[in-house]
Amino acid sequence: MGNADFVYPSTNEYRQCAHPVTVPPPQPFFKSFKNSLKETFFPDDPLRQFKNKTPSRKFFLGLQYFLPILEWGPRYTFQFLKSDLISGITIASLAIPQGISYAKLANLPPILGLYSSFIPPLIYAMMGSSRDLAVGTVAVASLLISSMLGDEVNAAENPTLYLHLAFTATFFAGLLQASLGLLRLGFIVDFLSHATIVGFMGGAATVVILQQLKGILGLQHFTQSTDIISVLRSVFSQIHEWRWESAVLGAVFLFFLLLSRYFSKRRPKFFWISAMAPLTTVILGSLLVYLTHAEKHGVDVIGNLKKGLNPPSFGDFVFTSPYLTTAVKTGMITGIIALAEGIAVGRSFAMFKHYNIDGNKEMVAIGTMNIVGSCFSCYLTTGPFSRSAVNFNAGCKTAMSNVVMAIAVMFTLLFLTPLFHYTPLVVLSAIIISAMLGLIDYEAAIHLWKVDKFDFVVCMGAYVGVVFASVEVGLVIAVAISVLRLLLFVARPKTFVLGNLPNSTIYRSVEQYPATKDVPGILILQIDAPIYFANSSYLRERISRWIDEEEDKLKSTGETSLQYIIFNMSAVGNIDTSGISMLEEVKKITDRRGLKLVLANPGAEVMKKLNKSKFIETIGKEWIYLTVGEAVEACNYKLHTGKPDATNEDSQPWNNV
Amino acid sequence: MGNADFVYPSTNEYRQCAHPVTVPPPQPFFKSFKNSLKETFFPDDPLRQFKNKTPSRKFFLGLQYFLPILEWGPRYTFQFLKSDLISGITIASLAIPQGISYAKLANLPPILGLYSSFIPPLIYAMMGSSRDLAVGTVAVASLLISSMLGDEVNAAENPTLYLHLAFTATFFAGLLQASLGLLRLGFIVDFLSHATIVGFMGGAATVVILQQLKGILGLQHFTQSTDIISVLRSVFSQIHEWRWESAVLGAVFLFFLLLSRYFSKRRPKFFWISAMAPLTTVILGSLLVYLTHAEKHGVDVIGNLKKGLNPPSFGDFVFTSPYLTTAVKTGMITGIIALAEGIAVGRSFAMFKHYNIDGNKEMVAIGTMNIVGSCFSCYLTTGPFSRSAVNFNAGCKTAMSNVVMAIAVMFTLLFLTPLFHYTPLVVLSAIIISAMLGLIDYEAAIHLWKVDKFDFVVCMGAYVGVVFASVEVGLVIAVAISVLRLLLFVARPKTFVLGNLPNSTIYRSVEQYPATKDVPGILILQIDAPIYFANSSYLRERISRWIDEEEDKLKSTGETSLQYIIFNMSAVGNIDTSGISMLEEVKKITDRRGLKLVLANPGAEVMKKLNKSKFIETIGKEWIYLTVGEAVEACNYKLHTGKPDATNEDSQPWNNV
Repeated sequence: MGNADFVYPSTNEYRQCAHPVTVPPPQPFFKSFKNSLKETFFPDDPLRQFKNKTPSRKFFLGLQYFLPILEWGPRYTFQFLKSDLISGITIASLAIPQGISYAKLANLPPILGLYSSFIPPLIYAMMGSSRDLAVGTVAVASLLISSMLGDEVNAAENPTLYLHLAFTATFFAGLLQASLGLLRLGFIVDFLSHATIVGFMGGAATVVILQQLKGILGLQHFTQSTDIISVLRSVFSQIHEWRWESAVLGAVFLFFLLLSRYFSKRRPKFFWISAMAPLTTVILGSLLVYLTHAEKHGVDVIGNLKKGLNPPSFGDFVFTSPYLTTAVKTGMITGIIALAEGIAVGRSFAMFKHYNIDGNKEMVAIGTMNIVGSCFSCYLTTGPFSRSAVNFNAGCKTAMSNVVMAIAVMFTLLFLTPLFHYTPLVVLSAIIISAMLGLIDYEAAIHLWKVDKFDFVVCMGAYVGVVFASVEVGLVIAVAISVLRLLLFVARPKTFVLGNLPNSTIYRSVEQYPATKDVPGILILQIDAPIYFANSSYLRERISRWIDEEEDKLKSTGETSLQYIIFNMSAVGNIDTSGISMLEEVKKITDRRGLKLVLANPGAEVMKKLNKSKFIETIGKEWIYLTVGEAVEACNYKLHTGKPDATNEDSQPWNNV
Repeated sequence: MGNADFVYPSTNEYRQCAHPVTVPPPQPFFKSFKNSLKETFFPDDPLRQFKNKTPSRKFFLGLQYFLPILEWGPRYTFQFLKSDLISGITIASLAIPQGISYAKLANLPPILGLYSSFIPPLIYAMMGSSRDLAVGTVAVASLLISSMLGDEVNAAENPTLYLHLAFTATFFAGLLQASLGLLRLGFIVDFLSHATIVGFMGGAATVVILQQLKGILGLQHFTQSTDIISVLRSVFSQIHEWRWESAVLGAVFLFFLLLSRYFSKRRPKFFWISAMAPLTTVILGSLLVYLTHAEKHGVDVIGNLKKGLNPPSFGDFVFTSPYLTTAVKTGMITGIIALAEGIAVGRSFAMFKHYNIDGNKEMVAIGTMNIVGSCFSCYLTTGPFSRSAVNFNAGCKTAMSNVVMAIAVMFTLLFLTPLFHYTPLVVLSAIIISAMLGLIDYEAAIHLWKVDKFDFVVCMGAYVGVVFASVEVGLVIAVAISVLRLLLFVARPKTFVLGNLPNSTIYRSVEQYPATKDVPGILILQIDAPIYFANSSYLRERISRWIDEEEDKLKSTGETSLQYIIFNMSAVGNIDTSGISMLEEVKKITDRRGLKLVLANPGAEVMKKLNKSKFIETIGKEWIYLTVGEAVEACNYKLHTGKPDATNEDSQPWNNV
């Protein structure tokens, strides 16, 4: 089949016009080790700003790194203060009723919700780098605390121990958060993908809403479990205990809250309506009870709240078994969840206002505020989404709005706690339900289904796990499916056949670009993942099958028989020793079939390994090309001038006994 | 900086000469779901041979699939039989002493080693597709059984229960193995990488050798633990109990065995010397004891072995708690390890003799032989490497050599068991040590260090874990490090800057190809992994840093300022919703800095997702190019004719309370 019209250069000549593929120069082991450690833990190169500075300047920059207030404080203006005052008071009006509600949800004394909105925001204002985060307690972590600690200690029977365990868990949560930040292990939070968080939050919100049936219906006995089946059984087995007064009150307040939400959503500048609504319902509800004495007719009220600021609690930590394990476990799980929410919220608003947030620095800030908080009667806090959004809409400029909120809460603690005596619990339930409905983001779930089915499965796994089993189960399911997806990507990489785009030297997937044409006698395969132990067996099978199929096809159409296999290695990011063995086996298989194996565009890492394992010598340096185009040209040249020399260097008997 | 000599076409005109990037046509969900399931579980397309066949032919092919003997049996010749006879007798001479030794290692009655070399090989001969695998018990699984079952039941105090547990564990191991094959989950075995197996086998061999100090030194009391520290403490705390008669005998036999191994290794055609050596030492040792009555002078002997074939044992399974859990756990772990060894061995020899092995079919065969074996007084069997190598070197042609071995073992069971009465235990220890020394593959470990440091760490993790803690710990460490590597690959993908190879439209990594040249005003980045939730935060940070560094560099040299960022997506195999959000954020960041984001060569899967999430509309279809070269050309055209229109479509206030 020689082509008489065209004079092909000899292979060596050809090699000289093609671009050589080089093996990168060997690097000392410790240098490359240091580099990869740096890339893994310091992708943002945080020490860059310290370069070429005097020691005192370095010290000040370091202080600024941990206390961003030193950076923005000196530039603080009266204009800023005006904005922060308004937003701070707005979020305080939200923080007070929500704080009380969430503390009830965590089975903790309501006053803890107020304590937790006083100290942590002050710490965060100094250390945090987000300008929009409003610090406070969150529903999901509160629910988790009640369900995880409740397994060990009954809050009704042993309230003091339960309270102390909550402080201990908060302490460990803070410790974990700060350590993750200091050790730059923030990427652990990344394993909670967006899809996981959507499903998890939705599930947790559903569970929290179901829990509120207790308050709304005025039930005295209620299940300790959080799954939907136990809760509904508990509710419907007590139909005769339902209190209509409580239910009617709850329904009215809920309607009011939802209406205000709806209204604010339609007209963003009326954000303050929905921000003020919870406090308004608290005041209205308390007034109503006070005037009608409904507390004597089946409407439960908060009762006495102690006046005064946070008492110290660092003497209350429980470090004895068996409680320590429970506290550590609760701290770990709630800490991670709270961190994920805080970082995600901070990042979204920063993206919106065009400034940057350093995830690891945020972790240190959130961790510190929880450690300090746990020493002063606060339980777990983070940056809840809804409150931060109100803060943002109210026009906050800096973290000073948190200070304003803390001062407002301080006043409440010092002077106003008696006013909450008559606040009906059903109002708190209505506040929680109205906040939780916003967390069930069904639109995001639909979006996931449309864009990425696997992410939808992750999301639904988290939702169903949380609703039908427990919060931890849901989380484990979602993370397991997500990790499985990563492993599957490597274990079952895509391979596809490439064809030539007419009138070009471009080779692309035949499936994606139907206009491509096969190259006679040459099969070009692309492997779309690193070649690792997890996929080397699969790839061997799959490659053999591609070759079989191609030969069958050629046989049936009577075309030129197959002579060359080209692997496009562009997408093969790395290879390990199992992968190299796989290539060696494929080389043997192709040799046996009289086919020549050619590699195109192996990356630096792959070339290094192939060189060290002598596979380059096995395959022949002249059979590695920089582009698929050059590889095809070289093969074509060979095809048209003579058969490839299929060297079948077999087989010394195996002599290892 | 316009280039007056060259008339650039307008963008639209330019687009028309460039190759368009197409979105693949939408596929019905269930079709694509079916396809990806098929690729995941049936990469070898095992049903292909059934296509277009009559039902009776299909039935026969199906039967052949599960019983390969129906395929090779009819073609069996007298020539084959001659070869299989020789190799079968050779492996029998190895199987008998090794079987007895390994059964002692598992703390089981020695006769079980013979039973296990009778039934399972017969089953395998019918169902197995390897022609070289010699079936039998293996040292590592035997050790695992003794250590895992020994934690629950003391073999010396309650031998019957221990025995029954061993049968039950074998039954579950077989069940697991067969199920993995039938459910086509064989890829689970792939997670035991080559590096893991090297380290694990080496560690297990070390542990087994240490255990033999008991037999060699004739100790009566010995630790139950397998870690090196406990064993050495146990040995050296009893210095005064050491029996020199036993030790001398052991040393002599070990020397003889190692000498024969060394000799066979030098001259492969004398393989039979090392194959016959164990049986020779057994005979010599027994004769010596019989003549000198050494059993009365501190040399322990095997003692009575019952004559007769395997008694049935399916009535002995223990399915009651707490033993069931132990049996299931032991079965799972030993089953997986045995499977990994059997499949790896079968595959290596098949590769050598140029035939194919279907991993899933092998699993069904190995599983069935263990299920049936466990019903007839056999414990766990697989295809040990050393015995299969002898089989191969002895010239076996088919699995018939296993049948020959089984018949030889049957004769032994029926008539020759009394001959083993005087066999000294120290000979068994010498046989085990000599076999185990071959498993410590330090050369492979050195190779791993040279080629791939990470694989070396995996290997050493397995070795150290096995030797210093326990077999299970070693395995868990190695698998955890291996999986961590896969996750790290995705979580911390390589990104690098591309440059132009002079006089070409090829763009390659600046690091790998130092000859490449920067393109003024354009930063070309390649991302070397799929963009998933696990790396989207990292990539955002890393990309920002690349842009910062590039701008700093340009500023310091006073070159053209940066105008375009091109992402080469060739190696991005897939993207999830978190990844798309990351791209959206990067788009916002680049817009804000007045940079234009351009994509080059996104794959089919990525294009599909980008299209569904409307990111293609966000970035503009005209900013997606088929190759980096075309993208650069288009950017250059724009650069030389006018500024890019950096559209800053920001920011509706956030109104989600």
